[in-house]
Amino acid sequence: MDVADPIAGFRERFLDDGSTIYLDGNSMGRLPKAALARLQEMAEHEWGTILVRGWTESGWMESPLRVGDRIGELIGAAPGEVIIADSTSVNLFKLVTAVLRARPQRNVVLTEGSNFPTDLYIAQGVVDMLGCELRVVERAALRDALDERTALLFLTHVDFRTGERHDMAAMSAAAHAVGALTLWDLSHSAGAVEIQLQRDGADLAVGCGYKYLNGGPGSPAFLHVSTALQRDLRNPIQGWLGHATPFTFQPDYRPAAGIRGWMSGSPPVLAIGALAVGVELHLEAGPRVVGEKAAQLTEVFIRLARARLCPLGFEVATPDDPARRGAQVSVRHPEGLAIVRAAGDRGVIGDFRPPDVCRFGLAPLYTRFVDIWESVERIADVVERGTHKLPRYRQEAPIP
Amino acid sequence: MDVADPIAGFRERFLDDGSTIYLDGNSMGRLPKAALARLQEMAEHEWGTILVRGWTESGWMESPLRVGDRIGELIGAAPGEVIIADSTSVNLFKLVTAVLRARPQRNVVLTEGSNFPTDLYIAQGVVDMLGCELRVVERAALRDALDERTALLFLTHVDFRTGERHDMAAMSAAAHAVGALTLWDLSHSAGAVEIQLQRDGADLAVGCGYKYLNGGPGSPAFLHVSTALQRDLRNPIQGWLGHATPFTFQPDYRPAAGIRGWMSGSPPVLAIGALAVGVELHLEAGPRVVGEKAAQLTEVFIRLARARLCPLGFEVATPDDPARRGAQVSVRHPEGLAIVRAAGDRGVIGDFRPPDVCRFGLAPLYTRFVDIWESVERIADVVERGTHKLPRYRQEAPIP
Repeated sequence: MDVADPIAGFRERFLDDGSTIYLDGNSMGRLPKAALARLQEMAEHEWGTILVRGWTESGWMESPLRVGDRIGELIGAAPGEVIIADSTSVNLFKLVTAVLRARPQRNVVLTEGSNFPTDLYIAQGVVDMLGCELRVVERAALRDALDERTALLFLTHVDFRTGERHDMAAMSAAAHAVGALTLWDLSHSAGAVEIQLQRDGADLAVGCGYKYLNGGPGSPAFLHVSTALQRDLRNPIQGWLGHATPFTFQPDYRPAAGIRGWMSGSPPVLAIGALAVGVELHLEAGPRVVGEKAAQLTEVFIRLARARLCPLGFEVATPDDPARRGAQVSVRHPEGLAIVRAAGDRGVIGDFRPPDVCRFGLAPLYTRFVDIWESVERIADVVERGTHKLPRYRQEAPIP
Repeated sequence: MDVADPIAGFRERFLDDGSTIYLDGNSMGRLPKAALARLQEMAEHEWGTILVRGWTESGWMESPLRVGDRIGELIGAAPGEVIIADSTSVNLFKLVTAVLRARPQRNVVLTEGSNFPTDLYIAQGVVDMLGCELRVVERAALRDALDERTALLFLTHVDFRTGERHDMAAMSAAAHAVGALTLWDLSHSAGAVEIQLQRDGADLAVGCGYKYLNGGPGSPAFLHVSTALQRDLRNPIQGWLGHATPFTFQPDYRPAAGIRGWMSGSPPVLAIGALAVGVELHLEAGPRVVGEKAAQLTEVFIRLARARLCPLGFEVATPDDPARRGAQVSVRHPEGLAIVRAAGDRGVIGDFRPPDVCRFGLAPLYTRFVDIWESVERIADVVERGTHKLPRYRQEAPIP
């Protein structure tokens, strides 16, 4: 399978000292070699020598829109619909607040209990601030919970625990049928599976730069507003760089037209430069091909897990249908935290999410099929030998 | 004066190809040589090799608090009162929102018309969202405008146009006398003049990392909440990293105690690492010494400007009293934009702010007294020769 893999060569584009099989690119992606060179160039040449003139001469000021458009290509958005800004959490705050303020006749945000915690926390904060309501239901009850009070259906595309993927087109259609908008958190799907926001009727989206997009630790996030909504929704964090003419220093805020109005403060220039490298690698590989490889990698992991891990007390938590999952496989085990730690010491880096989920992110750009086989064997070996029962694997805090 | 300067040696710690006299460190500070090495190390070693384990092993997760405490030392705050997070604009949004929500019996934010635009814009957005009022008056009318409806006196410590510095102790006392809190934007004073937040009774503050602190383009900002207020005020952008126990992935938000609760999303790790280098340089030089040099540099600039520039149609906009100014000198001229551009081509980098302000930031760590003399001479020469009247200096957009 590795020989037949059309994007096998991308592995060479990432720094890898060969010491580990890294199955945690869903938490923090590997370093593209070109990002190292780009950071060095930006710091030494642009910051160090071009200095403040870099805002125009080095294109710093436009970089949130320029790289945003490239992410837009990756996720099936139109030009001018995506911008790099802030963190996923701050972008969620901006969008949830904007929707509730634009639709005063609807006051409910609908989400599911398994949504990623920051999504739940941000929404709790916004509805509390605006006197609205957050309705949290189980996944199976989402469609029935949509009604004419729903302003926003707010979901994470790929579940961070189980890797289960929503049917974006179907859920968007269900929301639109009652007049609600949709907000998709793509943090665990951008760069992992093929995403077609326009085709699938997504209204709004955010996503993380430091997971499958390989933007580096704490890389900024992206924010998407569909063209049709850009005149209706307004960024509540009215910073100067979202102003129509920031450098005239007018006393009154007047939002920039289009996606630029979703900037608040100054863009994190160096981090955007690093993120751009990861995004270009994905575009070069092709999001469809990346998604196909994710489907195959996860298929192999699931089959091997059924054969080797389930007899040892594991249970596969990730769906069998590749269209219903992301690029991660999660297996549940009551001693999951200790097993993930012991596997880490055997050179297989995954992570753990309470209460019992061992997560393995199979980033398509740098994960080989042989890595999957080797990883499952080592995990099985850890459990067969009882290595994970050693005291040192039971005491530490979970990996972030 | 350069020979007698106790911190003259810090100039060697910054990259400088000798091609320009850089008087725009108030807009974007120079690159510390050690920041280049630190960025390289963080990218290659921490991101590239330690990978996701860097959150704990490389101290990424605690870096916003660790570097925040160092900035706290620089600005006279107590440990645990400062955190690195987001941008200045986003931090202002968090604090203004928090104050208005915590003081429902007071609904006015008081500021002055000359405040930096993002401060005005953010406050306009918050009061609009919460149904409160932004009262904007002239500087001389601020004290009289304080009353029992005032929730917050919101000022920028050093004015971005004129370089005029507020008397922080006096304004804080005046605000406290009517029961209002104070929020100080330190963007144009942190790293430029000595700041004593505790001594001068400041309640809340924010500041920029990429100006005098030399954190690099788009460097993250800092946020300060005095210890006494940390239990009363609550971050409205409830992201996962402000949670009391983020890695237990609880469904309900529970704010972390103390300054940590002001984090929202994941910290911008690489940028914090770069910023830390600039902050350490300032601490090594000593904020009092840095402030004293700023007073001397600006004194020399003002004297030379009076002698050489005022006869050519300039007017000094910066106060004569060094305690009432920052580390910048602003001179007004009706053809200011063209003059700044022409001076740039003569190797003197300043910037322009509408309508007529030529700004020169005299960053104490890397500006020599001889640079001031040389700069004023070159600016005078530009005007005497009429170089700034060439068409190419009249057409372009202002420098950000």
